[in-house]
Amino acid sequence: MNDIAHLGPVELLTPTGEESLRFFVDVMGMEIEHQEGAATYLRGWGDYQPWSLKLIAADTSGMGVLALRAWSPEALARRVAAVEATGLGEGWVDGDRGHGPSYRFRDPDGHRFELYYECDRCDPPPHLTPALKNVPGRYTGRGCAVKRLDHVNVLAADVRANRDFCVDTLGYRLYERIELDDGSEAGAWMSLSIAAHELIYTRDALGAHGRLHHLAFWVDTREECLRAADLFLDHGIHIEAAPSKHAIAQGFFLYGIEPGGNRIEVTTGGYFVFDPEHPPTVWTEEERRKGQAWGVKTVESFHTYGTPPVEAAAG
Amino acid sequence: MNDIAHLGPVELLTPTGEESLRFFVDVMGMEIEHQEGAATYLRGWGDYQPWSLKLIAADTSGMGVLALRAWSPEALARRVAAVEATGLGEGWVDGDRGHGPSYRFRDPDGHRFELYYECDRCDPPPHLTPALKNVPGRYTGRGCAVKRLDHVNVLAADVRANRDFCVDTLGYRLYERIELDDGSEAGAWMSLSIAAHELIYTRDALGAHGRLHHLAFWVDTREECLRAADLFLDHGIHIEAAPSKHAIAQGFFLYGIEPGGNRIEVTTGGYFVFDPEHPPTVWTEEERRKGQAWGVKTVESFHTYGTPPVEAAAG
Amino acid sequence: MNDIAHLGPVELLTPTGEESLRFFVDVMGMEIEHQEGAATYLRGWGDYQPWSLKLIAADTSGMGVLALRAWSPEALARRVAAVEATGLGEGWVDGDRGHGPSYRFRDPDGHRFELYYECDRCDPPPHLTPALKNVPGRYTGRGCAVKRLDHVNVLAADVRANRDFCVDTLGYRLYERIELDDGSEAGAWMSLSIAAHELIYTRDALGAHGRLHHLAFWVDTREECLRAADLFLDHGIHIEAAPSKHAIAQGFFLYGIEPGGNRIEVTTGGYFVFDPEHPPTVWTEEERRKGQAWGVKTVESFHTYGTPPVEAAAG
Amino acid sequence: MNDIAHLGPVELLTPTGEESLRFFVDVMGMEIEHQEGAATYLRGWGDYQPWSLKLIAADTSGMGVLALRAWSPEALARRVAAVEATGLGEGWVDGDRGHGPSYRFRDPDGHRFELYYECDRCDPPPHLTPALKNVPGRYTGRGCAVKRLDHVNVLAADVRANRDFCVDTLGYRLYERIELDDGSEAGAWMSLSIAAHELIYTRDALGAHGRLHHLAFWVDTREECLRAADLFLDHGIHIEAAPSKHAIAQGFFLYGIEPGGNRIEVTTGGYFVFDPEHPPTVWTEEERRKGQAWGVKTVESFHTYGTPPVEAAAG
Repeated sequence: MNDIAHLGPVELLTPTGEESLRFFVDVMGMEIEHQEGAATYLRGWGDYQPWSLKLIAADTSGMGVLALRAWSPEALARRVAAVEATGLGEGWVDGDRGHGPSYRFRDPDGHRFELYYECDRCDPPPHLTPALKNVPGRYTGRGCAVKRLDHVNVLAADVRANRDFCVDTLGYRLYERIELDDGSEAGAWMSLSIAAHELIYTRDALGAHGRLHHLAFWVDTREECLRAADLFLDHGIHIEAAPSKHAIAQGFFLYGIEPGGNRIEVTTGGYFVFDPEHPPTVWTEEERRKGQAWGVKTVESFHTYGTPPVEAAAG
Repeated sequence: MNDIAHLGPVELLTPTGEESLRFFVDVMGMEIEHQEGAATYLRGWGDYQPWSLKLIAADTSGMGVLALRAWSPEALARRVAAVEATGLGEGWVDGDRGHGPSYRFRDPDGHRFELYYECDRCDPPPHLTPALKNVPGRYTGRGCAVKRLDHVNVLAADVRANRDFCVDTLGYRLYERIELDDGSEAGAWMSLSIAAHELIYTRDALGAHGRLHHLAFWVDTREECLRAADLFLDHGIHIEAAPSKHAIAQGFFLYGIEPGGNRIEVTTGGYFVFDPEHPPTVWTEEERRKGQAWGVKTVESFHTYGTPPVEAAAG
Repeated sequence: MNDIAHLGPVELLTPTGEESLRFFVDVMGMEIEHQEGAATYLRGWGDYQPWSLKLIAADTSGMGVLALRAWSPEALARRVAAVEATGLGEGWVDGDRGHGPSYRFRDPDGHRFELYYECDRCDPPPHLTPALKNVPGRYTGRGCAVKRLDHVNVLAADVRANRDFCVDTLGYRLYERIELDDGSEAGAWMSLSIAAHELIYTRDALGAHGRLHHLAFWVDTREECLRAADLFLDHGIHIEAAPSKHAIAQGFFLYGIEPGGNRIEVTTGGYFVFDPEHPPTVWTEEERRKGQAWGVKTVESFHTYGTPPVEAAAG
Repeated sequence: MNDIAHLGPVELLTPTGEESLRFFVDVMGMEIEHQEGAATYLRGWGDYQPWSLKLIAADTSGMGVLALRAWSPEALARRVAAVEATGLGEGWVDGDRGHGPSYRFRDPDGHRFELYYECDRCDPPPHLTPALKNVPGRYTGRGCAVKRLDHVNVLAADVRANRDFCVDTLGYRLYERIELDDGSEAGAWMSLSIAAHELIYTRDALGAHGRLHHLAFWVDTREECLRAADLFLDHGIHIEAAPSKHAIAQGFFLYGIEPGGNRIEVTTGGYFVFDPEHPPTVWTEEERRKGQAWGVKTVESFHTYGTPPVEAAAG
């Protein structure tokens, strides 16, 4: 059951539309594909689709719809049937910009998703056409110059229920998870590919529903993460967690809070999973107490902060 | 048809067994899993299998059997049936060390392959057990400290025929290829995953059959490729092509010739293919004349040299 | 006799003023301090002076005046006296923008130099003020984002005569040199500090005088040199030599030709010389035939091309 | 007054001689030059002297003698006279292994120093002879493969008194310092070269005397610091501070505690000071509260821990 190709595009809500847009364009280095009303469609230079992020000026922060692209029309039909069978389906809608028909649903925690297959491919204007034709866009080098949307981490009141849904109904593979001493699951790292994670659920410490932990954008090297930290610093972007290496998934990270309050990661590294029978790594509470890979203690807000703020969340 | 998970292990023949072994252990930084007669079984610290390279002291150089692991017993059966239907099958054999039953066949050019599913997983001794349990082995840092077998590039007299076989019968996806002005195919870059290449065929300039262009081993960063060049230099390993960036697949490379004469690459970088309909990039003769990504002219031997030497090849 | 602190600012002539300016601002990522007539004053984010490069629209290419800053007024007086004693002095002039009185002279080959002590220090506007106050400017990350002028390589018909002048009269230390089989000197690498080179003389293959080989600008990491190559490629800047490592001085390099025809290097790496008695490394013709550190053969133009073109040079 | 060329060699005491030696050889990747009694003489591959570290099995931890090499015999004589004038001199001794006559003295805090000029230059055995003859040793790549001793940070009860001594009597240049709200000095970063720091004094939180904060060894790239963290982790070396960037001096760091209890840094980066009139950067208490460059809060032990333990220190 390998019916879904990848995650994205994703919608991000922000109460500070203009400042958030400047962050994604000037600091993250993304390109504007289109603007329409409250929405701006953006992409990284390595995104093969015309847009991977839809930034929406709104009353609050948080994630809107997270889209998943199927491998084929048949795969799309299969996954829609599977979702419908769970009772979480919401029905077909016209696709967003450049997308074919899309099927809306929610995960058990209430996050909004949609499945689609048809979509446009990035066709950049001349000044963004790359010198090497095997990548979709030109490397402009502006700001962090993130290459593409990489992964999404959402919060959930019940991680295991959502993990089961993703594995059983959507076809994700589980690569790592945290099991607390009381047997509950504090986090689950899942993927559709050899990449060590693409969709992550971690426990919402406030018990709220439908919240976002962070969106992560890829750069090719650790040096670019370090460089991104310099750029965050000089642009006055709050660095929540300075560059270091995760124990879980071994990704190299930089976490900042964009002007609208959403947590954004610049990421690279990790490992590939080639084993068809890969046994998920299970981390215990005691192991997690060691901190990140090199012993860095995770800042407290990382365990509690999500968007939207709880009072605004669909609890 | 996604029945094959990955390529490897691979056999490599060498006329200078001891020197080649020292190269893979001291310079490449691989671990010895087992030695038996003329064969030494080796792995990188990130290989999930107990061995990814079987180095065989022999009369000549070149590649022995290239194994492909199926996703499941059912997937194995399907691919064996498909291969048998082409008339290129050779039949079942007992698997190599730690492998279940394996099915032998040849590609149209004569390279030896085998399909298998069952296999052991790496279980390192205490001094090689990693601090972080989500990788199979400890990063010792010895020599180039390659992480794992990454890809294999073989030569073929008729690239297109072999590419068709890999795509149609084995299920590889074609991501890039070179089409010369006369319409012939000079190279094909294929993958089973989002990685930009895993199996490559390039034209054998001497019209021989069954030869190897190179085996490539992965490191996580470009800095490790640069460091590997320093190590090759100080260990007296001939550097055929100094670190630079390929235009095709955009991999970062270092090519050297191991003591037995086989070309070995230390590689990283490239791009990921998430698009289910990814259109293969087609490079023309004129485009190839520009050299590598940054204009480096490919050294002539890279286009002509393979192992075993032609006089010894199964022509 | 350690009377001179460092080299720079330097003047660069270009027949394509606007295109060259765009190169230094957009591709190299330098800031414009001031524009006046045909001259634009530029600096890197790590240059402590308000400008380190004066780009001058002119009829031809090549280097104008290369300034050297003395350690103190007394040191300036001592060096001026030493230069005067050689007969190569030309006299005092008003200093350029922000500089105190400057003493003009020529090296034996005819390149124009000036000695000065007083000068302004960089005082960036708010949008270029760094977050960390121990560097002079903000890291904007634009283009290659070069940090500062690093070194200058000039061509000379008689390398040894010029090297002797620099060592005996100016106080440079000789760290490396090339001695050909006929006993002549093909290159000399000199420094005023622990950095492996700051001023380089190499032989003018055309026997011309007063020409420039290249200006080099510093970045802190090799990854930035690799990134600069991507930027050169996508901006259509001719890459004369792709990133690799020099054998001499072990600097990591990228060489391109700016629109006006001058060769520009993005550089990092090398080694430090702490030994007060450091014996200069002497390279033979045979050793130089091995190419750069990792065996890259130096492109022929690197040995012959300089600016201005010979017909325009002060022969 | 530029009479001293550089700092080093340095003596380090350890109560766990064998374990500490294994750390410096296997993890740090240094070479053993000589062993004699309780002392082992070690160097990095880029140290121009035969040894830069003398590891001494002893009853406790901490720093022994820190040697300073003069630029010339005359410079040595001048500095000895200057030290004698302060009353802190202790007299001439026979030099250590390969050194000429050395003059012993103490800084105001009681750390032991010696001045020398004559010394041997590294002459490695064949298996450590580098491929490129402009560096003193072969890059073996073993462990962290540190290049050379870089800087020393000692603790002092009165930072300003010691800083004044280093500047006025030894000729160090002050590049950065911390001035607390009460006007006292919490740290001083000094150098003899363009490197941003070579000798650092920070306040001994326990008011003890003669203690060591850390010895720092250089690597050429930030990637090597990250790699060193992986090696520390897998070798069970306690990582006190994971790789990140200092605000002060902007060095990139990794701090670990070697088996004998001494704090050891793997370092790179920073900036160069070319300005003859460089105004020292003064950091306030408020500025220091922001943490390191990217906001990392300094671990408490970094402010309090030194060697030897206080009960053993020459208080």
